[in-house]
Amino acid sequence: MPFTSRQVYLKSTPVGMPTDDDFEIREETIADPADGEVVVRNAYMSVDPYMRGQMRMNWKPGMPLVGGAVGEVVASKHPDFPEGSHVNSNWGWREYFSSDGRGLAPVDPSLAPLSTYLGIMGMPGLTAWGGLLVTGEYKDGERVFVSAASGAVGSVVGQIAKIKGGLAIGSAGSDEKVAHLTSEFGFDHAFNYKTADPLEELRKGSADGIDVYFENVGGPQLEAALTHIRPYGRIPICGMIAHYNDSDTPTPGPRNLTETIYKFVQLRGFVVSAFNDQQAQFREEMGSWITDGKIKYQETVFDGIEKASEAFRGLFTGVNEGKMLVKFD
Amino acid sequence: MPFTSRQVYLKSTPVGMPTDDDFEIREETIADPADGEVVVRNAYMSVDPYMRGQMRMNWKPGMPLVGGAVGEVVASKHPDFPEGSHVNSNWGWREYFSSDGRGLAPVDPSLAPLSTYLGIMGMPGLTAWGGLLVTGEYKDGERVFVSAASGAVGSVVGQIAKIKGGLAIGSAGSDEKVAHLTSEFGFDHAFNYKTADPLEELRKGSADGIDVYFENVGGPQLEAALTHIRPYGRIPICGMIAHYNDSDTPTPGPRNLTETIYKFVQLRGFVVSAFNDQQAQFREEMGSWITDGKIKYQETVFDGIEKASEAFRGLFTGVNEGKMLVKFD
Repeated sequence: MPFTSRQVYLKSTPVGMPTDDDFEIREETIADPADGEVVVRNAYMSVDPYMRGQMRMNWKPGMPLVGGAVGEVVASKHPDFPEGSHVNSNWGWREYFSSDGRGLAPVDPSLAPLSTYLGIMGMPGLTAWGGLLVTGEYKDGERVFVSAASGAVGSVVGQIAKIKGGLAIGSAGSDEKVAHLTSEFGFDHAFNYKTADPLEELRKGSADGIDVYFENVGGPQLEAALTHIRPYGRIPICGMIAHYNDSDTPTPGPRNLTETIYKFVQLRGFVVSAFNDQQAQFREEMGSWITDGKIKYQETVFDGIEKASEAFRGLFTGVNEGKMLVKFD
Repeated sequence: MPFTSRQVYLKSTPVGMPTDDDFEIREETIADPADGEVVVRNAYMSVDPYMRGQMRMNWKPGMPLVGGAVGEVVASKHPDFPEGSHVNSNWGWREYFSSDGRGLAPVDPSLAPLSTYLGIMGMPGLTAWGGLLVTGEYKDGERVFVSAASGAVGSVVGQIAKIKGGLAIGSAGSDEKVAHLTSEFGFDHAFNYKTADPLEELRKGSADGIDVYFENVGGPQLEAALTHIRPYGRIPICGMIAHYNDSDTPTPGPRNLTETIYKFVQLRGFVVSAFNDQQAQFREEMGSWITDGKIKYQETVFDGIEKASEAFRGLFTGVNEGKMLVKFD
């Protein structure tokens, strides 16, 4: 019995902030699996800031979108993925899909909730862990500033710094989120970047400077970090949300890159694939922190595929706390 | 018999481009050496862009300026530095000085001309060598773009890349300098940054992109380099001359730092002291290249201490080809 699935296509390349008109939902029929195939019904899909870059560079109008998803195998002629088992895939933005098993990874919902495999146990968790510890060369006890700190990546960055004996400063875009950073996630200092002066806040949070700035947003916070960073400081560049929806007039970059020279500061861009070889180490470490109750996470969930583009846009307007997900009914 | 010396003091902190009024020449008397002391008569002093940063950060009005110099010991009661021998020091911006020997390094003018110890065999040479090979992690055969390429540092960067089997692209501020880059220094491609579009020129010089951008100037050339750099490219930040004389309105930084993310690009600031431990290796390698005729250098020489501030300003207006020096009569 074939499956009726809806999936999201890119209708036009967004200019500036994407709108609903840039996307189109089409209904498709997914055939029963042939030998060696499975059909998966997605339970959750992920929306992530990196997708905005893909829409500029790689995803063309008329193409179906892709992205992280977890779901249940609902029909199987593949020995590795029995009916009723759960898998992680890159086949998000659709309700059902068929697969020959390539790119599917089994996940265990009895170990951690299914949705966490798109969050703290998945790509955002690995991004935080690798960006701070590998790219950012974080050493125990150092002082970290992270922007977009209430997001799925940022909240984990701050908590890892605290677990490792350091100091964590975070910024977010509402007073409510800022309050959560200190009360829920254990940040030492937090501020609202929309109303506070970032350099003043960094000085309040750590008079002696910062060792690592985990960069998620660009703009004035990067300038403040460059001014306040200590000699031999590192700036892993995970994202620059402030710049992603630039169209004709790109946002100017930091005016004080000269700060890097006398302070031997390093800025280094990365995406999560940099840490593919370290996944096992990450899962082990993060899993034990979750089991021991040392780390917390939040999720913001939109219901139904028709809300996917709204959820995606919400990443850039600060709607989410923690990992932004779309749940399928 | 004491020595009459003139030396340059900072009179006021320069705002924007320094003027003659920011400096003051005073006459002083240098006493005959006491036991364990020497008196040195400088033959050449160096002016360098980094001094502009010092005038902003560390050098205050009323202080005598310092900087690289080479000279002859004209009176000595120190066993290590006999009269008639030559030394390198950080006591530039003055005609004579006395010293207890700390910070003096003997140099041999029979091995290489005295002035080269302020240039290719000295700080600028080490800056080029270390910035490219250590900070820039240059690998044999890679493609390098260097701005301010006809300067004391830039011309050496391009030549090292060529010696190591790579491709060198350089920019400079006049058609005459650009012509020298290819005809004298062996660059594969060169352009005048005042009249040409840097991104177009980089594409002409290397259709496949660049691996290293040796950053001396900032501004539009950094943007072009970020766009054209290849995955895992490195940008050692040696200087940003375009920004040094910013006063009230700093020049905006590159608008495309997001390029670093998907390309895993690294920007890393440095100053020459980073390579203090590698001086011996540098001297050996550079010395053999000079001996074998593999590397060329140029000098621009101003005569007399009263020309020192003019020489210094010339660094920012592009007066010099190669190492900028002041010679004392």
